[in-house]
Amino acid sequence: MSVDALDRLSAALAKLPGIGRRSADRMAMRLVEDREGVLRMLASALDEAGRSVRLCGCCGAVTTVERDPCRLCTDPGRDDRLLCVVDHPSDITGIEQSGAFRGRYHALMGHLSPMKGDGPEQLRIRELLGRVKAGGIDEVILALNTDVESDATAAYLEESLKPSGVRVTRLAQGLPVGSGIAYADPVTLVRAMQGRRGTDG
Amino acid sequence: MSVDALDRLSAALAKLPGIGRRSADRMAMRLVEDREGVLRMLASALDEAGRSVRLCGCCGAVTTVERDPCRLCTDPGRDDRLLCVVDHPSDITGIEQSGAFRGRYHALMGHLSPMKGDGPEQLRIRELLGRVKAGGIDEVILALNTDVESDATAAYLEESLKPSGVRVTRLAQGLPVGSGIAYADPVTLVRAMQGRRGTDG
Repeated sequence: MSVDALDRLSAALAKLPGIGRRSADRMAMRLVEDREGVLRMLASALDEAGRSVRLCGCCGAVTTVERDPCRLCTDPGRDDRLLCVVDHPSDITGIEQSGAFRGRYHALMGHLSPMKGDGPEQLRIRELLGRVKAGGIDEVILALNTDVESDATAAYLEESLKPSGVRVTRLAQGLPVGSGIAYADPVTLVRAMQGRRGTDG
Repeated sequence: MSVDALDRLSAALAKLPGIGRRSADRMAMRLVEDREGVLRMLASALDEAGRSVRLCGCCGAVTTVERDPCRLCTDPGRDDRLLCVVDHPSDITGIEQSGAFRGRYHALMGHLSPMKGDGPEQLRIRELLGRVKAGGIDEVILALNTDVESDATAAYLEESLKPSGVRVTRLAQGLPVGSGIAYADPVTLVRAMQGRRGTDG
């Protein structure tokens, strides 16, 4: 019983992160059975998001069509001298929720990944160098993930930013708060040990 | 950084089976970042499915607007005397792929579930009794799942079908093919033992 439109819906769902082909089939079936009107709700939410949601042309954060550059880029209360570089726009949301940072942001839209064919040209690195070159930035904070590809991306960015003379820092690595030594993997313990600080602050 | 359209998209995605709120957030972000045009692809697939996919008015299988009743209900080569009752339309696809059955189908669109508030009225049981009453059916095969709620549904259907005098059967329960005794749970072993058959077929 092959219904083409159902197959195409399943193929589209399988492109969502973390969704395999079997889950996509199950979702597609549930959507067309549609006892709760989810198909219509999802279709209209996608339509609305497609029309109104944008990524800020300056920093890459999620914003609306009406607000580009975004609130974070235009807020006069934020510190222009600090620029926090992240992988994805969602990372900006996380850092904002923590309240730990009051400067500006720059999302790379990914990290260097030879396996996926993502080189420096696929990322917003040129835009980053342009912003730093334009002046007024004292420190670039690399708030990247802690996997191998992100480490390679950080090294590449440090090298690229060197000529500008700007200070480049990375987030501290160590034990997550609320966890214990027994639960930490060896590499995290090495980083926590290397980054140890005096107890006088 | 709250963008309403993004929140609504995430809420709609969270209604898909097996998707929690965090996964939905991640999907929504990925969709609006939209490096590969997935948002548009998914929106158009949903639109097409919403317009063209239907559940057959007779058996409940997935079909198209143009083909209702579906191919399975109208195929003159299938046996009208055998009616296979399933939980969901996707179960029909599975049985068809096995090639084990050449009769007609009837999808209940769920099973009795007091927890979810699904009683007999929420299922297509009245339609089933109507089809059996209309005559021409010798055997109703209950091809339901093997959990407790499906067992209760089967018992309810057996009781409801008794006045019609039709033969009611259930699929065999036992060891799955390609598995071993060591991997079978105790209940499956009990069922396999109860259902044992002579080696002369």
